[in-house]
Amino acid sequence: MNPLAAAPTEKHLTSSAMLQDIVIGLSDGLTVPFALAAGLSGAVQSSGLVITAGLAEIVAGSIAMGLGGYLAGRTEVEHYGAELAREHEEVRTVPAVERREVQELFVAMGLSEPTAALATNELVQDPTQWVKFMMKYELGLEEPDPRQAFKSAFTIAGAYAVGGLIPLSAYFLTATPHAGLLWSGLITLVCLLVFGYFKSRMTGQAPVTGALKMAAIGATAAAAAFYVARLVQGHG
Amino acid sequence: MNPLAAAPTEKHLTSSAMLQDIVIGLSDGLTVPFALAAGLSGAVQSSGLVITAGLAEIVAGSIAMGLGGYLAGRTEVEHYGAELAREHEEVRTVPAVERREVQELFVAMGLSEPTAALATNELVQDPTQWVKFMMKYELGLEEPDPRQAFKSAFTIAGAYAVGGLIPLSAYFLTATPHAGLLWSGLITLVCLLVFGYFKSRMTGQAPVTGALKMAAIGATAAAAAFYVARLVQGHG
Repeated sequence: MNPLAAAPTEKHLTSSAMLQDIVIGLSDGLTVPFALAAGLSGAVQSSGLVITAGLAEIVAGSIAMGLGGYLAGRTEVEHYGAELAREHEEVRTVPAVERREVQELFVAMGLSEPTAALATNELVQDPTQWVKFMMKYELGLEEPDPRQAFKSAFTIAGAYAVGGLIPLSAYFLTATPHAGLLWSGLITLVCLLVFGYFKSRMTGQAPVTGALKMAAIGATAAAAAFYVARLVQGHG
Repeated sequence: MNPLAAAPTEKHLTSSAMLQDIVIGLSDGLTVPFALAAGLSGAVQSSGLVITAGLAEIVAGSIAMGLGGYLAGRTEVEHYGAELAREHEEVRTVPAVERREVQELFVAMGLSEPTAALATNELVQDPTQWVKFMMKYELGLEEPDPRQAFKSAFTIAGAYAVGGLIPLSAYFLTATPHAGLLWSGLITLVCLLVFGYFKSRMTGQAPVTGALKMAAIGATAAAAAFYVARLVQGHG
């Protein structure tokens, strides 16, 4: 393994992990608090209530998503550590079984039995390389960055809060929930189109289609919340 | 590749994909609507408003998460298709480059240059196997199930709705937001502990620690939403 060759890949991985966290946070942050505020706009008379509920949702959502992301990251690190210890143990205690697994993996890749046997013989000379091979190709696990969980938590929570405050800002600047909804809908629609466009470009999808899909999610969620809230409030 | 050997793995994959979707939906569903309802309980006098906002949030959250899960699944299928076409094209137009990539992958696995060359020679005899190798070991992509996106959407949305209705049910059965919050908190705490316990057991983590972590996320999000909502409403 050439460490110089590995470095740019690592860098690429880190920055795309951050972008991925921003996308996760913004996707939900731009849609859920917006849809909740839109829903309440049809059911209550006071912008203050919409803002209170909206801010409570943003706080609750950021914390739940951020802490959730943190725990998921920690779990990944612990899971990798536990599996690594198990593979080391197995290579030491049942080397014949592990050897046969390597052989089978090489055959599954498309090698003939004799070439697979030759490759297996070479690989098992170095237990570190052997365990690394099992981790990556048997279990499909890459070594996670232990600091990633912490960074992910803040990135997701921050992106969710930013995404949620954009639609809510309209209610601060207008007098009635009705006017707030109108401006909130317009602002959020533009943001969803722009966000969907760049998200799709980033993941190599058709950007215009991606923009329209993102806007459709927000509009559908908001319309459904609006009608449910009006229905419930009408019965309450 | 032995199709009989592959079958149980496939089955395992499908069921764990569904369990994973349930976990995604329940994690957010049990925390965010609960925290929002708790937040509003400290700021408004009517249980009707808490229920209206809670239901609007559950509808908005289920749709946004379900559609988000659906689009993420579709994107994965499209991305796999696009990369597959690109690898087929590259194997046809720049076989020497792709051959060298295979050779480098084998060396990175821990094989000597001559054995890697032998393995590469065998692999490139069959272009289908060759492309499959590049997809899996160069790009780290597994062929996604095209129906998974649709199933994921319904599973995530359903789990979110179920998770969200549990804390909200307390407000239906009590007279004041204060009493609702008390019962909602108790019910949700028990659900988060049970859910955290089974989620951790499923992913091979310490179950009691996992239960306490899950409960801590819910409690933190709810407490933060409660104080923010009270603060905002006090100023409104």
